[in-house]
Amino acid sequence: MDNFTIGVDLGGTNLRIAAVDDKGKILDSLDTLTHVSQGREAVVSRLTDAVRFISHKFSSTHKFLGIGVGWPGIIDLQKGTLHSAANFPGWNGYPARDDLEARLGATVILENDANCAALGEKWLGAGREVNDLCMITLGTGVGGGFVVNGKPWHGVMGMAGELGHMTVIPEGNACPCGNHGCLEQYASAGAIHRMASHAADRGSPCLAEARSKDPELSARSVHACASAGDPAAIEIFRSAGKALGIALANLINAFNLPMYIIGGGVAKAWDQFSPAMFHELHERSIVFRAGEQEKRSHRSTEVTPALLQDRAGILGAARLPMIMCGTKCRNSMAG
Amino acid sequence: MDNFTIGVDLGGTNLRIAAVDDKGKILDSLDTLTHVSQGREAVVSRLTDAVRFISHKFSSTHKFLGIGVGWPGIIDLQKGTLHSAANFPGWNGYPARDDLEARLGATVILENDANCAALGEKWLGAGREVNDLCMITLGTGVGGGFVVNGKPWHGVMGMAGELGHMTVIPEGNACPCGNHGCLEQYASAGAIHRMASHAADRGSPCLAEARSKDPELSARSVHACASAGDPAAIEIFRSAGKALGIALANLINAFNLPMYIIGGGVAKAWDQFSPAMFHELHERSIVFRAGEQEKRSHRSTEVTPALLQDRAGILGAARLPMIMCGTKCRNSMAG
Repeated sequence: MDNFTIGVDLGGTNLRIAAVDDKGKILDSLDTLTHVSQGREAVVSRLTDAVRFISHKFSSTHKFLGIGVGWPGIIDLQKGTLHSAANFPGWNGYPARDDLEARLGATVILENDANCAALGEKWLGAGREVNDLCMITLGTGVGGGFVVNGKPWHGVMGMAGELGHMTVIPEGNACPCGNHGCLEQYASAGAIHRMASHAADRGSPCLAEARSKDPELSARSVHACASAGDPAAIEIFRSAGKALGIALANLINAFNLPMYIIGGGVAKAWDQFSPAMFHELHERSIVFRAGEQEKRSHRSTEVTPALLQDRAGILGAARLPMIMCGTKCRNSMAG
Repeated sequence: MDNFTIGVDLGGTNLRIAAVDDKGKILDSLDTLTHVSQGREAVVSRLTDAVRFISHKFSSTHKFLGIGVGWPGIIDLQKGTLHSAANFPGWNGYPARDDLEARLGATVILENDANCAALGEKWLGAGREVNDLCMITLGTGVGGGFVVNGKPWHGVMGMAGELGHMTVIPEGNACPCGNHGCLEQYASAGAIHRMASHAADRGSPCLAEARSKDPELSARSVHACASAGDPAAIEIFRSAGKALGIALANLINAFNLPMYIIGGGVAKAWDQFSPAMFHELHERSIVFRAGEQEKRSHRSTEVTPALLQDRAGILGAARLPMIMCGTKCRNSMAG
């Protein structure tokens, strides 16, 4: 009998739940809106109902290990409480682990969503063949996660991976975090939207037309303009790639991990930003350059796009019970 | 019967050898010049003679575990060979581990000198109470080492810890590594010498007078001028502190280790550079700021001066056999 777990991706907009077997096959999944505005109790009830519904489907054919939950904020891993997530007002201090375990009768493992994505890529994506990796997720903001010796790396306060707030241009754009020149100010979908809006205001015809069809002026629209040869759009991705290259050069010089994975929506513009990123990496990182020379010995540092797209987080969440408790997971859920 | 090991600090100028017991007591030590110019065979013969001499003194009272060797360059840890150390021409590819083990009949563990210093501080210095730390050594250059889960962190190519070549000012001073704005260009003894020489040329009276007594214009002389209130010398340490703060903010945002230790000769000017360093850390690192608020719970990220001064490297080297082979160390050295 194969094992299975439930992965939960509890996002500010979407709530995804999946039953995943220990080979990484998604047995079944369920996508719904989180509806945070309905309040915590309503969200948690919906979540636990869905977990019960989906796990019962497989309880006669598979052995259930437990539940992994990805959450877009800071977690007190010792206490199992949730803290400081921008999109979850009123959840600060919620004892999610104990409450969910009591309601579901099974082991619950909490993890930051960026670490879940990193773990998903390590399990089934770009990082399958390494034990240590860093993942940078270029979404609305820029998130980061590390896997070290095959497990998520939390840091002493559970705040490791704040890669969006690495300084790349010391006197650069102000960031809401209080710093200037954060990576997030150059390489996030939000930054690309901001730069593209300015360019549209200044008369870039492609971006102005794109904005008339897509008022959000998404990274996808800006990418289409860049692919069509629009100089302003090309320059936006060049500056995003430069900022990424500076941040990655520092991370590679520091930790020399075998793999750095770039994911999130903006990563789909890899063809546009990666030449500038690799140029900076080559110029700025003696460790990356040494790796270029050693490539044949399979001991280089690689920088590569993510493979799992938006499944990385849910697969990483489902992976948590398998590696964090395994046969010691508790499960008294009714069969 | 207590255990003991031999630590070897094989530097470009000095060769230090110490017998150390497993409580960290230096039983005996021997300092000599390396005399690299005499050639590799002469250096290695002198080294092995000294190891035999010093280990035989304790072979009847202590159990000998093995030898740890710190080396200021890149090491192929799988093959046990030495590579790319600026001050050791002709040593590239030398199979140090196998050669020293054959000559000495005992387990030899090689390690980068910056990692040895980090391990020494973890064992007996500022990092005694943590399992994970980063050490930045401000010497002629800027070196770095990590201890992760109590052991040196090497990275996939053995090149982790190149912290002197982290970019802090993207369009800053050119560095011989090929990059611009490396930390080493602002916070090393070499950089302080360079900045102080310029200031002396431009007429700073204290620095000009210091140079007449100390033509090398060492960090110690510049520190004395700063302590006497010389504005140019104060500004030099302020800019070193700013560069350190930017680099540390990035390292803390990324890995959130419990401790970052600043060592090396320049660290003696802590009173001069640390205010600017902490100012940048507070401004630039959301993780460091969160730690300032959590200090009472002992879960902050600390930035602190090294405690062991120039003994960190030799103690870390001696520690290597204790944690890397322990009771499995081989030893057939004649008693």
